[in-house]
Amino acid sequence: MRSIIDTVDLTTQEIDELIKTADDIAAHPEKYAEKCKGKKLATLFFEPSTRTRLSFEAAMLELGGSVIGFSSASSSSASKGESVADTAKVISCYADIIAMRHPEEGAPLVAAMNASVPVINAGDGGHKHPTQTLTDLLTIKREKGRLDNLVVGFCGDLKYGRTVHSLINALVRYEGIKFVLISPQELRLPSYVRYDTLDKENAVYEETSDLEGSLPKLDVLYMTRIQQERFADFDEYERLKDSYVLTVEKLKKAKEDMIIFHPLPRVNEISVKIDNDPRACYFKQVLNGKHMRMALILKLLTEKDYDKPLLGDDVIANVYRCENPRCITSSEQEIVHYCRKAHSDDNIYRCVYCDKKVK
Amino acid sequence: MRSIIDTVDLTTQEIDELIKTADDIAAHPEKYAEKCKGKKLATLFFEPSTRTRLSFEAAMLELGGSVIGFSSASSSSASKGESVADTAKVISCYADIIAMRHPEEGAPLVAAMNASVPVINAGDGGHKHPTQTLTDLLTIKREKGRLDNLVVGFCGDLKYGRTVHSLINALVRYEGIKFVLISPQELRLPSYVRYDTLDKENAVYEETSDLEGSLPKLDVLYMTRIQQERFADFDEYERLKDSYVLTVEKLKKAKEDMIIFHPLPRVNEISVKIDNDPRACYFKQVLNGKHMRMALILKLLTEKDYDKPLLGDDVIANVYRCENPRCITSSEQEIVHYCRKAHSDDNIYRCVYCDKKVK
Amino acid sequence: MRSIIDTVDLTTQEIDELIKTADDIAAHPEKYAEKCKGKKLATLFFEPSTRTRLSFEAAMLELGGSVIGFSSASSSSASKGESVADTAKVISCYADIIAMRHPEEGAPLVAAMNASVPVINAGDGGHKHPTQTLTDLLTIKREKGRLDNLVVGFCGDLKYGRTVHSLINALVRYEGIKFVLISPQELRLPSYVRYDTLDKENAVYEETSDLEGSLPKLDVLYMTRIQQERFADFDEYERLKDSYVLTVEKLKKAKEDMIIFHPLPRVNEISVKIDNDPRACYFKQVLNGKHMRMALILKLLTEKDYDKPLLGDDVIANVYRCENPRCITSSEQEIVHYCRKAHSDDNIYRCVYCDKKVK
Repeated sequence: MRSIIDTVDLTTQEIDELIKTADDIAAHPEKYAEKCKGKKLATLFFEPSTRTRLSFEAAMLELGGSVIGFSSASSSSASKGESVADTAKVISCYADIIAMRHPEEGAPLVAAMNASVPVINAGDGGHKHPTQTLTDLLTIKREKGRLDNLVVGFCGDLKYGRTVHSLINALVRYEGIKFVLISPQELRLPSYVRYDTLDKENAVYEETSDLEGSLPKLDVLYMTRIQQERFADFDEYERLKDSYVLTVEKLKKAKEDMIIFHPLPRVNEISVKIDNDPRACYFKQVLNGKHMRMALILKLLTEKDYDKPLLGDDVIANVYRCENPRCITSSEQEIVHYCRKAHSDDNIYRCVYCDKKVK
Repeated sequence: MRSIIDTVDLTTQEIDELIKTADDIAAHPEKYAEKCKGKKLATLFFEPSTRTRLSFEAAMLELGGSVIGFSSASSSSASKGESVADTAKVISCYADIIAMRHPEEGAPLVAAMNASVPVINAGDGGHKHPTQTLTDLLTIKREKGRLDNLVVGFCGDLKYGRTVHSLINALVRYEGIKFVLISPQELRLPSYVRYDTLDKENAVYEETSDLEGSLPKLDVLYMTRIQQERFADFDEYERLKDSYVLTVEKLKKAKEDMIIFHPLPRVNEISVKIDNDPRACYFKQVLNGKHMRMALILKLLTEKDYDKPLLGDDVIANVYRCENPRCITSSEQEIVHYCRKAHSDDNIYRCVYCDKKVK
Repeated sequence: MRSIIDTVDLTTQEIDELIKTADDIAAHPEKYAEKCKGKKLATLFFEPSTRTRLSFEAAMLELGGSVIGFSSASSSSASKGESVADTAKVISCYADIIAMRHPEEGAPLVAAMNASVPVINAGDGGHKHPTQTLTDLLTIKREKGRLDNLVVGFCGDLKYGRTVHSLINALVRYEGIKFVLISPQELRLPSYVRYDTLDKENAVYEETSDLEGSLPKLDVLYMTRIQQERFADFDEYERLKDSYVLTVEKLKKAKEDMIIFHPLPRVNEISVKIDNDPRACYFKQVLNGKHMRMALILKLLTEKDYDKPLLGDDVIANVYRCENPRCITSSEQEIVHYCRKAHSDDNIYRCVYCDKKVK
């Protein structure tokens, strides 16, 4: 049995296979219409996310399975103080596979450690969201025909953008990727992503605050939203915000075959006038997301014999405590505090749940 | 592809056909049990309405399809600022047909303009609720055997009663309908319904505040609730409210074959002692509502070739702005302000979303 | 047609048959996978309870049926003032069977009196929760091989624990049961349960405040949670609480084949270190609960000819009024106040909805 908590749980070969399955699903949906007949997906959404939840539910239904679950914590047993571990054990009696979204980092990992069915992380706070990243990879592959030798621009809030960090982390595995990191100074990519991911993998990247000037060289543009509340200085926000809105005018400077991504929901950072431009791929991402989730559900439900442990034997139990208040360790009862040594530095240990430094 | 936003989107012939299909469904449910196998309905309820939502869901399930969706705005992406247009585009990737309830007038039309699947308006604020009206027509036909030559009384809150306005609007198309409009002065039918619908169609109607006196002549009695908050003067409310409550005593004055309607939920405006009277049809309406929604879902899913545009070529874009704060134009980003000339008056233009005057 | 509002609605023979069916379902799930094809369960949860709701939903899906419903009152018509009686009539048009949880005592009985489909009480306030009790009986039978000649300990909050009262009420029907009632003085079993159930049936029982000392003699230990808010004196709570937490250390004193129950959700009253002990049965209860609900749904959907009235002819209408503020009679409009004479005392009459004394 196997769970997917992070994109790095999958090898690049496995990702290629998922993309192939997703493509086959798109081409021959009827072949898959009964594949999960009699199987149940539990969508455990401790915070609302219509798009992700309905994507999982549509995916399971198109495989012939059915769905149970909840869409917010208030209608769950969590409001009565039940631990994530107990919830996972309970739901394992009802469903064949679980998709969990939770505001606390590491909660899906705790669920996977306790469930007797596969768990898919559907987003844990600002931490990981692997099915979004897999969807982004599928979309790049479908639109550009390849996952290597691309100039990929990320624009907007690169500091807090979980989907940005995950996609960068996934793309550094491929050859010839050049990253263009476009953001105001306040919202630069965090140094730990630059050091631990980009520098460690010798990735080629540049940082800039200039969207218009960067557009001509991009093959892929990943837009995100800049939120006012991220700025200490309101005037600074007012001065900057329009530079990071994609308009028809700015888009004239881009390549004819550049593709535009957005993790959605969009507020106003991409003009709706661009929606009909063939380069706009953000609604294609939605459809691709359903296909990718179908491929992933199928994979996990058929890999019964998978026996690699969820945590490797390099973890250390209850030596260092995680102090991250957004980590599941801060609220889960009687939890074992696991950490492991960072790849980059022998003196750094990271919490296995939230990846924050514990030493 | 076709969407149903208002009852007037359907011709009387089409309504007749829907009634025939609904009757056939009631008589031979097994014939329809697999008609929508593999199809998905999305119930997008931005405000709660158990009865309407469960009616749509039961309808789709009895056609062999399945259902995804949400039952309140708080568990939707709207809470993150997503536009109705974007939600419609996203959900089109997941479902084959959409039923949308929204507190803002015109929201389902915006959805229909952006979705790539049919949209059914399941109620947009105080504006339209076509499946309720179709259900009322089906119930009259089933109970009285005809839709013409009837004396139809509407009682209670005729000012704000959306279902009342819609049913009047639908019934004026039929011959020999006489309307009896029973309400306190404060809650009379709005003048625009009297002028634009009743007078324009030369309908026969009378206005009265006397329920008991009107009862003997009615073939159909449509009850609605009088809410205290509609009255400026509390004493006036106290004085009047009991006159508009239907009791066993009052019912003695009605015809033996009069039928009683209520859009539900009822609070106390019809005594529960009347529930077992054969004239009480309000729970039959519920069953009929399911059959009508089945007929409508079937119709829309099979009319793929329908190519009449959602908006006619008589609309004018961005000349007059709608100022109605309850209209979707007040909140949707980058929306085109469409209006069209009123039938009754060349100098009046109405917003296509909410039907309010814009000039 | 038949509804299940209380465990005592079932004879011990019927309970035995349900247990047999549940066992057969567990052994041969494929035999039951299409038994309810085309049938719909409505889960009407006026207060949230993930575990119970998802158990019912999983049960119906594993029988090949489908599910509609709501998971909290805020997304139901109750927020618009609809009565439970009307909701039951409406939902009867949509579903083949109803599972209702409601905060008011007696609400599921009112639903059953008005629905035209079977109603299962899924918990009504602090009153009854028959599928939990049936699940407990199934678990004892599966784990111990019998329902008689057992020493059964109940530990913790015996005063407010609805599941405790119900299970005691069910177990007194079997021979040779000895009850050990373990609780602080403040949370003793209420006198009406001792008198009306234990004493009336000549049951053998002892009361004690000592968990550790009682452990060696128990065949079954039913743990519940002690909540701080139940204590007038905080110091008393602090002094006592640890005595009623089950730890690995304490468990050493128990029999090798004792079984541990908990109605869940657990907070900290059973150490998670015990979860892997073979005596821990609380997650088995969850699985058993699904099987028992499958058996019950099947039974009710096939017993169409059952014609015993819901209320016997010993009820008296509108003579004594129930004054219990948590009873459905306090909020339901135009409800008939039914009561019946208590078995134990000719001078006592109890409300049929909530079982509280009305005279």
